[in-house]
Amino acid sequence: MALTTHSEHICAGGRVGFYSHQSDQLGLVARFGAFIPSRAQSGQRVPALYVLAGLTCNHETFLTKSGIIRFAAERGFAVIAPDTSPRGAGVAGEGDSWDLGLAAGFYLDATQTPWRAHYRMGSYLSRELPELTSTVMPIDGERLGLMGHSMGGHGALVHALRAPGLWKSVSAFAPIVHPAAVPWGEKAFTAYLGANRSGWADHDATLLIASGHRHPHTILIDQGVADQFLDTQLRPQEIEKAAQLAGQPMSVRLHEGYDHSYWFIQSFIEDHVTHHAAILTA
Amino acid sequence: MALTTHSEHICAGGRVGFYSHQSDQLGLVARFGAFIPSRAQSGQRVPALYVLAGLTCNHETFLTKSGIIRFAAERGFAVIAPDTSPRGAGVAGEGDSWDLGLAAGFYLDATQTPWRAHYRMGSYLSRELPELTSTVMPIDGERLGLMGHSMGGHGALVHALRAPGLWKSVSAFAPIVHPAAVPWGEKAFTAYLGANRSGWADHDATLLIASGHRHPHTILIDQGVADQFLDTQLRPQEIEKAAQLAGQPMSVRLHEGYDHSYWFIQSFIEDHVTHHAAILTA
Repeated sequence: MALTTHSEHICAGGRVGFYSHQSDQLGLVARFGAFIPSRAQSGQRVPALYVLAGLTCNHETFLTKSGIIRFAAERGFAVIAPDTSPRGAGVAGEGDSWDLGLAAGFYLDATQTPWRAHYRMGSYLSRELPELTSTVMPIDGERLGLMGHSMGGHGALVHALRAPGLWKSVSAFAPIVHPAAVPWGEKAFTAYLGANRSGWADHDATLLIASGHRHPHTILIDQGVADQFLDTQLRPQEIEKAAQLAGQPMSVRLHEGYDHSYWFIQSFIEDHVTHHAAILTA
Repeated sequence: MALTTHSEHICAGGRVGFYSHQSDQLGLVARFGAFIPSRAQSGQRVPALYVLAGLTCNHETFLTKSGIIRFAAERGFAVIAPDTSPRGAGVAGEGDSWDLGLAAGFYLDATQTPWRAHYRMGSYLSRELPELTSTVMPIDGERLGLMGHSMGGHGALVHALRAPGLWKSVSAFAPIVHPAAVPWGEKAFTAYLGANRSGWADHDATLLIASGHRHPHTILIDQGVADQFLDTQLRPQEIEKAAQLAGQPMSVRLHEGYDHSYWFIQSFIEDHVTHHAAILTA
């Protein structure tokens, strides 16, 4: 459980830092970013918001561009930002596509060679990293919220639906809600999980809801209407329909003019922190 | 006055965009970033905060990392982010050092070959860009505020002291307050302005105050005490002393634990927007 500190900076009265550790799940050194609010410096354990970034991003992106820190600081929340894939797996061609391999781990455990040896962001996120952060940081592991953007929104929805006891609150910006039915997901799932689509259902938020998975709290989804990926990759109406049929509480908010960028995320990040805080501090 | 739009994004109800234009002063294509708040979309001219980034940065950095947009949006202010140097001048070796040449224009007009042909960020900032933004954007050229970070803090202080009628309000984060007396400034001024130090005084905020320049409003300076450049390059006590002697209103705030990064800037950016707003909307 040894952590290497790469940099730390005081921010908004707390401390933002970038760290790495030897990951058992990935079999590699893994990096993550973290913000610890000032309240935790007096020994108090604080709730944490896990933030999952999207394709092409890394463990710095969400913390740097979303503007989340000041709102987390106001609430006394920590923020944990995992990386978007393993680094250094050495899979041939893993850096050739921006939507597969490096920075495109889809927060799942690959079952197929050559990916399965290291591409295990699923177990890393659901087991290893929460254990680590609750051990080496003053984080209350019973009060974790999960949010994400695009591929990270997919990760947030899937993980929270599969483990609502771990992830007490969940939200997403422009998530891939039905990866089994869109090109990004089909490409990644075919490579990581194999061509047999029956194995994909556990990794698709819309299918998880359809098959009976529930989260006890409202799932908040924000989506820009001018998002260039709206119709081809995101299609929030798919999960909204599944949630309505299933009785899963969900709030899908569509925003005219907003695109897929962090300019969109920063515009609504305060609402997401408020959403999580209402559940985690209830 | 033709503007090329590279990208535009809706953000916080307004619009952030990245643009370029043929600059007469630079003799090159120049880039800048801009945020226009929603209030301006109804034809109303709005105040603008010019933000000057530091060494190694570009016209995107301050907008992306400072968190300024949400506070500008709340106030109905535009934000204009110039680049930190000309691009494409073709000066031999201009990309070799991170503290001279590219991304290190120091917001002045070079007088020395080979720099003087294109390194004219001084006149670009004091004349060309304000004229342009008041012409092609719904900006009230009578209500401009100027802030900057590090090298950009130097630029903000010097330009506001030399033209307080143009820059109605001024503030800085970790500025180079006395460049004529520190290594960054000595290197840049020797190259751009020549070895004769008598020509440097017009480009040094501390010397400008000592020689009688004044700004009618309080100059706000924030400085982190854990800033790695505090003693060698920044030394805010120099300008504070000059301001006290001269009766120039100035507020120098020292912040324990904070370093030179945008994590520091984002922690206090709201205070700076409030400082400018109190003057620009009085």
